[in-house]
Amino acid sequence: MGNLYVGLLHFPMRNRRGEIVATAMTSIDVHDIARTARTYGVVRYFVITPLPSQREIGWRIRGFWTEGERAMEESNRGEALEIVAMAEDLEETIEWIQEAEGIPPLLVATSARRQGDRIVSHVKLRERIEHGTEPVYILFGTGWGMTDELIETCDLILPPIMSDSDFNHLSVRAAVAITMDRLAGDV
Amino acid sequence: MGNLYVGLLHFPMRNRRGEIVATAMTSIDVHDIARTARTYGVVRYFVITPLPSQREIGWRIRGFWTEGERAMEESNRGEALEIVAMAEDLEETIEWIQEAEGIPPLLVATSARRQGDRIVSHVKLRERIEHGTEPVYILFGTGWGMTDELIETCDLILPPIMSDSDFNHLSVRAAVAITMDRLAGDV
Repeated sequence: MGNLYVGLLHFPMRNRRGEIVATAMTSIDVHDIARTARTYGVVRYFVITPLPSQREIGWRIRGFWTEGERAMEESNRGEALEIVAMAEDLEETIEWIQEAEGIPPLLVATSARRQGDRIVSHVKLRERIEHGTEPVYILFGTGWGMTDELIETCDLILPPIMSDSDFNHLSVRAAVAITMDRLAGDV
Repeated sequence: MGNLYVGLLHFPMRNRRGEIVATAMTSIDVHDIARTARTYGVVRYFVITPLPSQREIGWRIRGFWTEGERAMEESNRGEALEIVAMAEDLEETIEWIQEAEGIPPLLVATSARRQGDRIVSHVKLRERIEHGTEPVYILFGTGWGMTDELIETCDLILPPIMSDSDFNHLSVRAAVAITMDRLAGDV
């Protein structure tokens, strides 16, 4: 079985008007997605932002629970936050994975909009993870989603969740949880 | 197909020391779970707390997006928050459903711990929802989980998610998302 990695990207994202922006990191995304990722056996959860001050905040949140005062308390939150790492850009995280695994990861985008070819169903990707040995790195966007150029650089794209619903505006926290359960859940 | 309802309970919950408490409502639970519930076709999402001041805050959050200034903007958040209703206790919500549906709902508890008999798998409950007409009301706890007495009053209990993982401390937001996807997702 291939190791799983998760990346949460804050740049280059689209905003409400389609412009390319760096979105703000939120502590709830750091916490919730760390807990989900840790539960599903993800090796590392990268929070990616080009803003040094936000990376600093992210490291501080992690340290508070893994080395700071809360690490002394009877809480398992530190176990989840241990897998979090802040990074400046996607390339840095891909290099990290390649160094740890010996081979580059299969890069998989997620999108709330349907995207051309290279779409792989959750079931097919699950099979590939279970029977393969290559690391699989799943990317999630923030704001109004990843730019098309970013999605273009990925090897495969997971289809939108609940695309036939008359409403499908899940939080990224919910989208990560559902995606992890579909790819690695104990169904 | 039976209609789906979701309830988020803040009392009677256990705290870290096993004592029975009313937990604090959070705005992120109102928003995230409303978006998930609306995406999966849930008819109504009840946020249940005995504290009048917290119900007042909940109604204000809802109104801000459904009738207030943000309702005028180009945003679909209001569509999600429209299905939110604040309630004082579980009985009030069951009466609401019974009045709307003509029959009482099948009451289903969720728990992060494994609970005796009356366990129903997600697959079996999904079949029952798809082939039945009865409303199905799924309850989620907060804090350190529902009291045993509360779980005792439910008709069925869903098993813990990822109980074999060496870490399974999902946020309630992630647990609701995964549960809804298993029961009503477009897999």
